[in-house]
Amino acid sequence: MNIDLLVTNCAILPAPGREPLIESGYLAIGAGRILASGPMAACPEATATTILDGHGQLAMPGLVNGHCHAPMVLFRGLADDLDLLAWLHGHIFPAEARQANPGMVYWCAKLAAAEMLLSGTTTVADGYFLEDEVARACAETGLRCVAAQGVIDFPAPGVEDPARNIETAARFIERWQGRDPLVTPAVFAHAPYSCGHNTLLRAKELARSRQVPLFIHVAETGKEREQIAEPLAASPIGHLAALGVLDRHTVCVHCVWADDRDLDLLADHGAAVVTCPQSNAKLAAGRAPLAAMLRRGLRVALGTDSAASNNSLDLFREMDFAAKLHKVNPSDPTAVPARQLLRMATWGGAAALGLAEGHGTLRPGAPADLILIDRNRPRLQPWHGPDLLVYGGPGACVRNVIVNGRLVVRERRLQTIDLRETCDRVRRLAMK
Amino acid sequence: MNIDLLVTNCAILPAPGREPLIESGYLAIGAGRILASGPMAACPEATATTILDGHGQLAMPGLVNGHCHAPMVLFRGLADDLDLLAWLHGHIFPAEARQANPGMVYWCAKLAAAEMLLSGTTTVADGYFLEDEVARACAETGLRCVAAQGVIDFPAPGVEDPARNIETAARFIERWQGRDPLVTPAVFAHAPYSCGHNTLLRAKELARSRQVPLFIHVAETGKEREQIAEPLAASPIGHLAALGVLDRHTVCVHCVWADDRDLDLLADHGAAVVTCPQSNAKLAAGRAPLAAMLRRGLRVALGTDSAASNNSLDLFREMDFAAKLHKVNPSDPTAVPARQLLRMATWGGAAALGLAEGHGTLRPGAPADLILIDRNRPRLQPWHGPDLLVYGGPGACVRNVIVNGRLVVRERRLQTIDLRETCDRVRRLAMK
Repeated sequence: MNIDLLVTNCAILPAPGREPLIESGYLAIGAGRILASGPMAACPEATATTILDGHGQLAMPGLVNGHCHAPMVLFRGLADDLDLLAWLHGHIFPAEARQANPGMVYWCAKLAAAEMLLSGTTTVADGYFLEDEVARACAETGLRCVAAQGVIDFPAPGVEDPARNIETAARFIERWQGRDPLVTPAVFAHAPYSCGHNTLLRAKELARSRQVPLFIHVAETGKEREQIAEPLAASPIGHLAALGVLDRHTVCVHCVWADDRDLDLLADHGAAVVTCPQSNAKLAAGRAPLAAMLRRGLRVALGTDSAASNNSLDLFREMDFAAKLHKVNPSDPTAVPARQLLRMATWGGAAALGLAEGHGTLRPGAPADLILIDRNRPRLQPWHGPDLLVYGGPGACVRNVIVNGRLVVRERRLQTIDLRETCDRVRRLAMK
Repeated sequence: MNIDLLVTNCAILPAPGREPLIESGYLAIGAGRILASGPMAACPEATATTILDGHGQLAMPGLVNGHCHAPMVLFRGLADDLDLLAWLHGHIFPAEARQANPGMVYWCAKLAAAEMLLSGTTTVADGYFLEDEVARACAETGLRCVAAQGVIDFPAPGVEDPARNIETAARFIERWQGRDPLVTPAVFAHAPYSCGHNTLLRAKELARSRQVPLFIHVAETGKEREQIAEPLAASPIGHLAALGVLDRHTVCVHCVWADDRDLDLLADHGAAVVTCPQSNAKLAAGRAPLAAMLRRGLRVALGTDSAASNNSLDLFREMDFAAKLHKVNPSDPTAVPARQLLRMATWGGAAALGLAEGHGTLRPGAPADLILIDRNRPRLQPWHGPDLLVYGGPGACVRNVIVNGRLVVRERRLQTIDLRETCDRVRRLAMK
């Protein structure tokens, strides 16, 4: 066993929401994967290049953020507490039109990647334009990403002529497929109201031919059907089904306004869902029927959406919010329990995004994407079980982060990029 | 000017939700109070005992947690995702009966105080039994508290004979009034369903005679009226009004099930409210009519409730949750804006608890209770305004905390108590 990194003396949660905690164990990591793990008594004597003493820490799979627009950290707090349309048309779209260029996308995505790593996320599914820069920024920062190039029937950053939106996405996939172990390229069709039939069909065809996932915002607001030109069904999700773009490799983001028939369609086609409860709440878009989705066995990931509508990329906070929101309305304190959130935020979410079996766990063979949480912080005392990882707010207690076998956060410090330079760059962009 | 502590080179938010940010300023502190503050250009040349360079940090008033049961950190995560009655009767009450004794209350309150200070809270209104131990623990840890001795018509920890509940509270007030600048004693009548008419009247009479606030849980769940023996009105709040226990020094905690008539009663009597949205959501108790309360001009504080039903005492997270919960249901993205939460969590909350004018601000004369937040953390980049303090999750970014002029947290480390010993003690209690 060629061990690059040996983590010792830590508690281990190998598959959150499913497997029990190992009180004191080890994790052997090599070639970017988990080679072995178990109780300390069974720790191999083999020499490792690096040994990380995890005493007082809990190792768990890094979190999987199912939906983000990383470069939008630039607009974090630019315009809060506004009506969705006033927010979008009065603030976000004009700011994007002025500001979105390769430099902005690169530096802001780097800041977002830093924020996610430092709060325990090790994989993000991102969708934006000029997505090469997001992929480059994530890879440099050490965050794994499913990077989806945006497709929309309007001029967009880097795609002035919408007629070239599919071609741009195709070239993006060509450039990134097989290039970097941290980057999986994908397609992000913006929404059924911003992409016509032809664009949706071509986007899905592209995704199918390259065997990459297709992401799409759908059923975010109650008025969406009215915004779709020539809807083919009674609902936006029905429209996608009628077009034939729903399958196991289509990831439907939001699905707030999904009724039972819509959920049937998603289940019948095996489509995956990403729910973004804080963004949907802050913009008053609504509350997705998460409990019903889980009952139906849909693959569901949890996403922060962008920092412009959240305004944090801390997925631990998203878990906590989701657990409570779905209990208070409708009133059921047993709805969406903590263990389901832990699963959605790790291996369940990874499965929804189409990542390989084992991703989001610490089982042998899985990618070595894990975080070590300081168990000695007051907010994590005492320990009555893993629910604490949902309700205790451990995003503030992440000490070490390993992605693809590399220690990217060590003792709360990012090892990969110059964080100060990144913050300075983003601050200067924000002053414009 | 006798300056004990001079904070320099920091951004300052003197009265969150009302006054603008000073970009680079100073704060002079002496005898536990703010002596002066302003832009760096006007910083006095006087020698100070201690100088704290606040470069890269933002100073704001420490947060005021309007409702807590600090010792219940012992039960954090003991029983999540359960029905309220199953939770209380199956888990919390039995655990309290077994465990609540002076040692448990003291050590657990110390842990809670540490958690609150480290996440930016500098004042807590606590209500429990054996409250002497809570007051002692908070004072030692350096957290300001309004410590309210519990009154209930059942045997309780330290009050085996309920006939002595008022007398016990009276002695508690005698022991603490004027004794420690950090401790304000008070009375906490548990609820209208657990305290009979006579107990409520005597508790209020005691509070009036000693000029201390009376706290009471009221209208937490929809079934509460049915639980009140001989209700005097159509609602629990009406019952309190009919008894004559509502006035400007009565603090009504929860008020989830308050209709327009109840809000009128609260307004007419000038009673204050504490809202605990996360606890109410997690237990599926409901959603308080917060927007309506604020429209009516009620004094409202924000509280975490106990760690057993939250499960964190980070009031920054409470602000964020409240802002979003009240936007999504009923749907209004402009409801309960960030600035209102900032106000409720600082000087507005202090006013609701009956603390002196200026408390919760950084104005000259105010108690020197303030926190310094690391502005350079990625989650707080870039800065478009103070809303970020609600939506960005700054509980993880608190670097320095000053209470009553004393630096109790310095560079993220608690200066006052042995945190390791405290954690060990609580862990051992939890293992029982």
